[in-house]
Amino acid sequence: MKNDNKNNKKMVEDITSMEEDFAKWYTDICKKADLVDYSSVKGCMIIRPYGYAIWENIQRIMDTKFKELGHENVYMPMFIPESLLQKEKDHVEGFAPEVAWVTHGGSEPLTEKLCVRPTSETLFCEHYANIIRSYRDLPKLYNQWCSVVRWEKTTRPFLRSREFLWQEGHTMHATAEEAREETVRMLNVYADFHTNELAIPVVKGMKTPSDKFAGAEDTYCIEALMHDGKALQAGTSHYFGDGFAKAFDIQFTDKDNTLRYPHQTSWGTTTRMIGGIIMTHGDDNGLVLPPAVAPIQVVIVPIAQHKEGVLEANRAMYDRLKNNFRVKLDDSDNSPGWKFAEYEMKGVPLRIELGPRDMEAGQCVMVTRHNLEKTIVPLENLEEAVAAKLQEVRDGMYAKALANREKRTYSCTTIDEIKESLKQGDGFVKAMWCGCEECEDKVKELTGVGSRCIPLEEEHLSDVCVCCGKPAKHMVYWGIAY
Amino acid sequence: MKNDNKNNKKMVEDITSMEEDFAKWYTDICKKADLVDYSSVKGCMIIRPYGYAIWENIQRIMDTKFKELGHENVYMPMFIPESLLQKEKDHVEGFAPEVAWVTHGGSEPLTEKLCVRPTSETLFCEHYANIIRSYRDLPKLYNQWCSVVRWEKTTRPFLRSREFLWQEGHTMHATAEEAREETVRMLNVYADFHTNELAIPVVKGMKTPSDKFAGAEDTYCIEALMHDGKALQAGTSHYFGDGFAKAFDIQFTDKDNTLRYPHQTSWGTTTRMIGGIIMTHGDDNGLVLPPAVAPIQVVIVPIAQHKEGVLEANRAMYDRLKNNFRVKLDDSDNSPGWKFAEYEMKGVPLRIELGPRDMEAGQCVMVTRHNLEKTIVPLENLEEAVAAKLQEVRDGMYAKALANREKRTYSCTTIDEIKESLKQGDGFVKAMWCGCEECEDKVKELTGVGSRCIPLEEEHLSDVCVCCGKPAKHMVYWGIAY
Repeated sequence: MKNDNKNNKKMVEDITSMEEDFAKWYTDICKKADLVDYSSVKGCMIIRPYGYAIWENIQRIMDTKFKELGHENVYMPMFIPESLLQKEKDHVEGFAPEVAWVTHGGSEPLTEKLCVRPTSETLFCEHYANIIRSYRDLPKLYNQWCSVVRWEKTTRPFLRSREFLWQEGHTMHATAEEAREETVRMLNVYADFHTNELAIPVVKGMKTPSDKFAGAEDTYCIEALMHDGKALQAGTSHYFGDGFAKAFDIQFTDKDNTLRYPHQTSWGTTTRMIGGIIMTHGDDNGLVLPPAVAPIQVVIVPIAQHKEGVLEANRAMYDRLKNNFRVKLDDSDNSPGWKFAEYEMKGVPLRIELGPRDMEAGQCVMVTRHNLEKTIVPLENLEEAVAAKLQEVRDGMYAKALANREKRTYSCTTIDEIKESLKQGDGFVKAMWCGCEECEDKVKELTGVGSRCIPLEEEHLSDVCVCCGKPAKHMVYWGIAY
Repeated sequence: MKNDNKNNKKMVEDITSMEEDFAKWYTDICKKADLVDYSSVKGCMIIRPYGYAIWENIQRIMDTKFKELGHENVYMPMFIPESLLQKEKDHVEGFAPEVAWVTHGGSEPLTEKLCVRPTSETLFCEHYANIIRSYRDLPKLYNQWCSVVRWEKTTRPFLRSREFLWQEGHTMHATAEEAREETVRMLNVYADFHTNELAIPVVKGMKTPSDKFAGAEDTYCIEALMHDGKALQAGTSHYFGDGFAKAFDIQFTDKDNTLRYPHQTSWGTTTRMIGGIIMTHGDDNGLVLPPAVAPIQVVIVPIAQHKEGVLEANRAMYDRLKNNFRVKLDDSDNSPGWKFAEYEMKGVPLRIELGPRDMEAGQCVMVTRHNLEKTIVPLENLEEAVAAKLQEVRDGMYAKALANREKRTYSCTTIDEIKESLKQGDGFVKAMWCGCEECEDKVKELTGVGSRCIPLEEEHLSDVCVCCGKPAKHMVYWGIAY
């Protein structure tokens, strides 16, 4: 046991405590849980097998949902000619300053430079102009999984990197109403995925006009509060009206034989969600993964595995579970204590221990990662107990994250109240707003928190704007953004 | 019926006949079967939903196999700094002339230009140098699914485009022997996938030294013969020895405490496989898809669907099949004849027709796409009959493709024999070779066929080289390459 403790201690010592330095704790976890590595490509990350397996689980669940709702996957080129990017005025203004430019192919300069896609509205629109003719061609519900590039100055793994992986849905509809429904439908898909699968509570809302996506009429978003009280935009869904359709001359013949412009949406989520998982659920022992996306849901650690029959009994347990769960049996030579620390670092939701004494008693020990609680479980109920424990883990993780958010959400009616509240720690501020950009800027300047979103479910906290005192139009969630 | 025939004819008229112009027939199919579209991004393709769904099926089957064999997926950056690409001499010489260069990020010139990955050996090696320390870290069996860029001058959808989708496996092993085993293991995975799932017969072989991958010691490949007698390289697997390991200073401590260089492989297949499917199986009615990767395996076409009970009976058939097959019921207003032509164009392996007379007789009509043969099937045996028919389609497609290859494979012992044989049409030439590059070049110059591979199973056709008459070292497959 002495040896175990030493090893155990060693690993934990390797990561900075959250309280001491949250940013360093975050990057420590990214490295120590084998999620990412750095390379000589500045600002880009290598997603290692353990990190990529989380992304594959996210992809599988979301992709299934997209397809159930009638979406089809496509693949567009990764390059956008400069002239194509420039077709929609607001869009190019928003993106041109942060794109990477390809200027040479082989040894020859290109006649027109190409940007590496930062997002693909322009490519989808060009394609839609080719293939949409009649109302019968609508709606078009396309999605693609790919990587995109935005030339960020400061980068952090998953949260902000020059290249990241994402999905981008791009849809076209006969009417504005249908397109608005799609925008909200996909926002709800994102919100449900975060709530149910990632155990991350989110606020559904709409960005203020100053914070909209380049070229969008409305940008909806889901906002989550991280453990440190900072806000993370975890997914966005945009309603474009017919602005791009007009810029790209996409028209269809409607049922009444009239030529009309279709209405458009786009929506996206990225590998940033993995950053959200880390910062919502992680602790000083390492990562804590929601069962739905954990590469390993259950790890089996034999106790005194050199003793007769122990490995066999652990293998039998593995065989009972392997078809219904992502389960790993670690029968390596490392000590149990080393293994405990290792799988805690990797955030495996459930650990099962089985040693000679457990075998005699016909039971095993289950330890849930998020609260490190031990339960003795009769072996005969193994399968049901594992399923129940994983549900318990998801629910416990959600409750813990929700409690953190509630503790850190402050309702304020004056600037002074905001300042006073934030002394308790960073968090969400709920306050009324008159709707003008000046007040948005001033709140940020005076208190440090910027507008995150106007929630879909607003509360009435006061009649007047927290900043100027004029009549309030909306309740706004304010926060410090990642 | 008149109307049906007209519609039917119209669609078929739209594609060029194979015999008339195979290249045009090919691009017609790509467009008319809704596989791809073009955009303003020269040399790149848009993969449309129907084409992308084929790729998703390919990915799912291959990825499952890779994982069964212990491979893990990762994601590497899409950019490679110029200095990193230059680390292995042969590699950079092979790829530098055909890469796309990023020179600007936002409005700023980069201090070092970055190429968009044409392949990722250099990135994997840099990462492996970071994470491989001991023999316990080996083997490393990594794979990634991504897009790569090679700045080709002439392009064709799927076969050769500036950007394409692929998987690239990169593995590291403690010994040369293990790495060689992996190289051949993955070649066999590719060959089995082509044979069993794509119904494409392939020759497994090794490239001659002049045709090896840049930086490899040995390049293995699978070569398929297309309907027009031209050869398609359908997958490659490379053995690198420890050349990259030395260039990138990747070393591990072996069991005997000695520092050693690991041995490396890489292997890849691309969206080119979809081109191979089209050119192996397609005909003048359109695409013919192997059941394993067909987005729609079975299409149900109601006959006289306005008559009482017909749609209900067709829906009941759909419900019986939907859980075990990828099935579509087309109850649109288009005529049956139009639907027949549409799904023949799209290569759906099996069509089921059900009308009032069939219902009375308790049967349906099944038509297999590859030979357009009709069978009457009792409705009570529906599920078993569909499974059997799909197997029959795969087997029939394979037999047809194999017969075409055999008909077009010529064993030759002299240059004149090669010339004479090729008058019957393009195809594979089997002939002996002395092993020198001059003879390789000369055969191509004199006859038009280049060396495709030295097959793993060589035959002894003669004692001497077909070109110089000196003692033969190998039998070689020669052909005209796509």
